[in-house]
Amino acid sequence: MGALRLPFLISAITTTTTSTAGYGRSILRHKYSRRLCTAAISTEKIAAGETEERRENKKAGVIAPRSQDFNAWYLDVIFNAELADYGPVRGTMVIRPYGYAIWEAIQDYLNVKFKETGHSNMYFPQLIPYSFIEKEASHVEGFSPELALVTIGGGKELEEKLVVRPTSETIVNHMFTQWIQSYRDLPLMINQWVNVTRWEMRTKPFVRTLEFLWQEGHTAHATPEEAEQEALQMINVYIKFAYEQAAIPVIAGRKSSVETFAGAVKTYTIEAMMGDRKALQAGTSHNLGQNFSRAFGTQFADENGQREHVWQTSWAISTRFVGGIIMTHGDDAGLMLPPKLAPIQVVIVPIWRKTDEKSGVMNAAISVKDFLHTAGIRVKIDDTDQKTPGWKFNFWEMKGVPLRIEIGPRDVSSGSVVISRRDVPGKQGKVFGISMEPSILVDYIEEKLNEVQSSLLYAATSFRDSNIVDVSSYDELKEAISQGKWARGPWSASDEEELRVKDETGATIRCFPFEQPQGPHTCLMTGNSADEVAIFAKSY
Amino acid sequence: MGALRLPFLISAITTTTTSTAGYGRSILRHKYSRRLCTAAISTEKIAAGETEERRENKKAGVIAPRSQDFNAWYLDVIFNAELADYGPVRGTMVIRPYGYAIWEAIQDYLNVKFKETGHSNMYFPQLIPYSFIEKEASHVEGFSPELALVTIGGGKELEEKLVVRPTSETIVNHMFTQWIQSYRDLPLMINQWVNVTRWEMRTKPFVRTLEFLWQEGHTAHATPEEAEQEALQMINVYIKFAYEQAAIPVIAGRKSSVETFAGAVKTYTIEAMMGDRKALQAGTSHNLGQNFSRAFGTQFADENGQREHVWQTSWAISTRFVGGIIMTHGDDAGLMLPPKLAPIQVVIVPIWRKTDEKSGVMNAAISVKDFLHTAGIRVKIDDTDQKTPGWKFNFWEMKGVPLRIEIGPRDVSSGSVVISRRDVPGKQGKVFGISMEPSILVDYIEEKLNEVQSSLLYAATSFRDSNIVDVSSYDELKEAISQGKWARGPWSASDEEELRVKDETGATIRCFPFEQPQGPHTCLMTGNSADEVAIFAKSY
Repeated sequence: MGALRLPFLISAITTTTTSTAGYGRSILRHKYSRRLCTAAISTEKIAAGETEERRENKKAGVIAPRSQDFNAWYLDVIFNAELADYGPVRGTMVIRPYGYAIWEAIQDYLNVKFKETGHSNMYFPQLIPYSFIEKEASHVEGFSPELALVTIGGGKELEEKLVVRPTSETIVNHMFTQWIQSYRDLPLMINQWVNVTRWEMRTKPFVRTLEFLWQEGHTAHATPEEAEQEALQMINVYIKFAYEQAAIPVIAGRKSSVETFAGAVKTYTIEAMMGDRKALQAGTSHNLGQNFSRAFGTQFADENGQREHVWQTSWAISTRFVGGIIMTHGDDAGLMLPPKLAPIQVVIVPIWRKTDEKSGVMNAAISVKDFLHTAGIRVKIDDTDQKTPGWKFNFWEMKGVPLRIEIGPRDVSSGSVVISRRDVPGKQGKVFGISMEPSILVDYIEEKLNEVQSSLLYAATSFRDSNIVDVSSYDELKEAISQGKWARGPWSASDEEELRVKDETGATIRCFPFEQPQGPHTCLMTGNSADEVAIFAKSY
Repeated sequence: MGALRLPFLISAITTTTTSTAGYGRSILRHKYSRRLCTAAISTEKIAAGETEERRENKKAGVIAPRSQDFNAWYLDVIFNAELADYGPVRGTMVIRPYGYAIWEAIQDYLNVKFKETGHSNMYFPQLIPYSFIEKEASHVEGFSPELALVTIGGGKELEEKLVVRPTSETIVNHMFTQWIQSYRDLPLMINQWVNVTRWEMRTKPFVRTLEFLWQEGHTAHATPEEAEQEALQMINVYIKFAYEQAAIPVIAGRKSSVETFAGAVKTYTIEAMMGDRKALQAGTSHNLGQNFSRAFGTQFADENGQREHVWQTSWAISTRFVGGIIMTHGDDAGLMLPPKLAPIQVVIVPIWRKTDEKSGVMNAAISVKDFLHTAGIRVKIDDTDQKTPGWKFNFWEMKGVPLRIEIGPRDVSSGSVVISRRDVPGKQGKVFGISMEPSILVDYIEEKLNEVQSSLLYAATSFRDSNIVDVSSYDELKEAISQGKWARGPWSASDEEELRVKDETGATIRCFPFEQPQGPHTCLMTGNSADEVAIFAKSY
């Protein structure tokens, strides 16, 4: 796959996405996929001992080397950069201001896109009657093992247990049924930004927590074509977001029937390769068909007065994406943030030795800060007296700030600054003598931010492409997976054979990518002809 | 009180706000205040029968007259204008897009102000160990009757019950204790936009629901003075918001010790007079003193290395404020929205009789819409063929849109439009022949929106001031309350006497207003000298 290719238009490839998913079978699929998900993260140990080690590292400002222990590195980065902390209840997470600011940048971008594509925000209650969850057969199978239940309210045992929302399809359909009468009420296209709760056994900050934040879009349409178009439109919004904002070269495609969402007819996904080469499912868009509208009686009268069930979609991106950003771009020095989502894009470190140098340096630093801020750049001065410049350099590198400006007494006299790039270590990333003249410096900084943004995407794309192997037999697949890589090969075998691959290799079908090589293909497992290639990988 | 007086600066009046609140007594206060709150809303019946009547009214597009049945009017407005709907669980509410857009406008304004005043957003888990709630004595007394408890997670009975957050002081302090080491970590100033759950017995959409949305700010400081300053700063942000954005002339002041928040040393409040002259507590800011820091051991080392408990504040505004906007400005025709918070500021109704008139009218309407939109005005065309212009006029009036533009064939030929104000009924509010020339029309619309905004504030202020009575004896107070008015009079009597007033009149002390008449005063109850006047009213 070529580096830096921008997201293709989906309309051209919808013909490849015919579903083979029978309604009844999604139960098996979902249960199975969850079980394997859990198995796949068995290397992760957030035992008390390990937490202690992480706390010690945080105190010392130390980060475990990424290449040696990816999981320890990930946790060290999260705690040292103050992105998040553990909550008091097992598996919960406190999102600290620096981590939350990344989530706010994600929200700011997506919220505009959702509105541009015709969706309105609203809010559904988080407490859902237990009976709702039971109405859609595959949904209850998929979610009932993970529910948090409220059984006492106002000091009294409740007559019906209440589910703390794990996702909102059921309550959405309960309300849609009351709001939709005729085709004139369609399409109904809404979104909500909320917290959801799933009783996960093995948790990891951002990636899998008992409670997380997300947006969930829900739409209802008069025809199956419209619903399919919507599901594709929204996965396209996610693809564009991942490439252009997060600099993550996701591979988008359709989930296998085994991996399809509990209650969906088709699931589209964006899959991101993390620094340890595991796949992260970073966003999904579901074509729900009429599964929920039949379960909840959500009907409309068409132009002839005929009553029909609506066709639906749902789609979501969560705070898990923040974990994806950390694990895609970080290095041994810590976090590396794409400029478009970085809470601080430029940090200014003023440097002086003698006290009489301070005021000149500080005045210059403040003036630079002010005009960068006015130009819309997110900039901060680190002017504390308690730390050395060297300490500050390391600290802001660890926090992943894309650019650093150094200003010392000599810079002040020459009217220039020194600029260092986070993504290019050492002297190579350092440029001296950039003029402090506002119009010159603003242009230079904006150009450099764009360069860092592109360079992160380029690096991630190269890494991804050098770790995807084309395979034509099961032996080749096993070899690729055992090397920690992703395997891409033609696939038309059964669900049972897909499950066998999982059992034997730990890898799952991440997706049938939208971008398909020219055919004809021969199924790597059965030797039969295959319409599509699939991507197999171990995943979070 | 003078009309349209803008919020005074708080710094001038802090000397009047000395607390008389002993720590231990806040238990009694809060319990009592909650009980009376419930009694005060006994006129509200959301029984099955009444809900049925509301549903019929919604189907018919009918709104009960505001003057005859304020509560029925309120619910009819909410359902007809599609602001909200009942959720499936008793007491829960679905906030629909039109209602949620008002909340988003509130968020957009406050979020900027919070950041300008040095606060960062973040996120705390909503599941709190039950033991946390028990740590602060008055807090547990205040909140334990209203808790929703999760007792089952992932199919298993939990060892410790978990509280679904009713407010976050306890979990905030648990985390602050880990993050704060020395004075250098202070002040710590954060905010979160989240859902909270309180098991209320009598509910009313927006005003009191089992789950609601709010922002809760939490800060920790090194000195009591700083905490007091912060609590006042934030009530000032709320005052400015209420007057300038919501056009609600709130009366701000300090709560009596009986009415102080469970766990606070002092509570500041903004109190709004609704159309039925009941008071709505629309926002609060608490000086928590060291109550929570002592309960959770939240300490810092000062500059001398001495360990001390931090001084704290918390402050909140919720979706209840949307109810306040409805009940302040609405009239018999429905909702009336202040332009600054209105999701739609201008609706364009194109009018034609003959088919050959349509394209000319529609082209003009679209061109007007486009340039208003470009100028940053929130504008919508109602171009449906299925309704008459008269129906549309009523519909958008009911939805509270501040300005309507009518464009017919004659307007197209004369290059002008007709503009109607929502707040001035009939011909008086209608102006003909306003030029369609973009620069002229944009200026005119912006000016009119400002006029409507001021006019709503003026009307609400006049209404408020004509319904506050100065009283100097308990008999006068009783008389004012029995007339449905607010009573303002000097007060230095005991908590017991305050409770007696509640029992006998149904009115509570809403606040000791910041704005105090010149003294000396004589307590209306005891005849002793009094430092301050208090405002008594029935409330939601």
